[in-house]
Amino acid sequence: MGYNIVLIEPEIPMNTGNIGRLSLASGSTLHLVKPFGFELDDKRVKRAGLDYWKHISLKIYESVEEFFEVNKGEKMAFYSSHAEKEYLELDYKDEMFLIFGKESVGLSSEIIENNKESLYKIPIYSEHIRSLNLANAVSVVVYEGLRNLKLGS
Amino acid sequence: MGYNIVLIEPEIPMNTGNIGRLSLASGSTLHLVKPFGFELDDKRVKRAGLDYWKHISLKIYESVEEFFEVNKGEKMAFYSSHAEKEYLELDYKDEMFLIFGKESVGLSSEIIENNKESLYKIPIYSEHIRSLNLANAVSVVVYEGLRNLKLGS
Repeated sequence: MGYNIVLIEPEIPMNTGNIGRLSLASGSTLHLVKPFGFELDDKRVKRAGLDYWKHISLKIYESVEEFFEVNKGEKMAFYSSHAEKEYLELDYKDEMFLIFGKESVGLSSEIIENNKESLYKIPIYSEHIRSLNLANAVSVVVYEGLRNLKLGS
Repeated sequence: MGYNIVLIEPEIPMNTGNIGRLSLASGSTLHLVKPFGFELDDKRVKRAGLDYWKHISLKIYESVEEFFEVNKGEKMAFYSSHAEKEYLELDYKDEMFLIFGKESVGLSSEIIENNKESLYKIPIYSEHIRSLNLANAVSVVVYEGLRNLKLGS
């Protein structure tokens, strides 16, 4: 039981570190798509991920194209503040790919355009911001997915 | 609709910054209990919270004793990796106080001992770690609480 967490071109090392910890905690595989905004051996990635980084199930891709080529045919959900549907509406399936864009601008307009039917957002109850921190957003989605798998609801 | 998020003696400025952003996003009030492991005007708090920090509904307490004195009688839930019940078992009520300990060691044994009936954990599916990053844990709990309020389940 678990998910495939996908970060496309992540920029902030602490976020990737914390999402690594989340991947391990939730029994997920972490997929990281280059280019990154940091070196993967940056001490800020490892500090957030502490000494268990080596236990994470990790896959690295050189480009967005490689990611989609390798994982063709998999069930995927995409997360964007531009989505109309909420993340609670998705019928989460075990081993699904949960895909997040970069911190500064989210998913590219091309990815959004190509996946409109599978686009979900986390609702924000403030006019002053439009999104959560990336690691926080991934955490909310992955644990909602686990809740779905456990309760079958 | 919203919650009261309580951080007792938080240590890492980026986490408090990201939880400030979460508080705003979720329509929650943020309660911070001293001593902190940083100055509240640390640029790392503000960087994580960006320019919307001023919009956060924020309450500061000089000590744990002051927090419990001021908020006596409120409905409270406590989060700890030492809990037996899972966070999904809680019947979340609007305006409830959701209380988290410091990053390094969590809630004090005194608080845990005094609130055993209201103690909840986020399940971890790995033998290599025992908890999520603090901001990630708060995010999972607060959005599960919002889901409860919205769906009445």
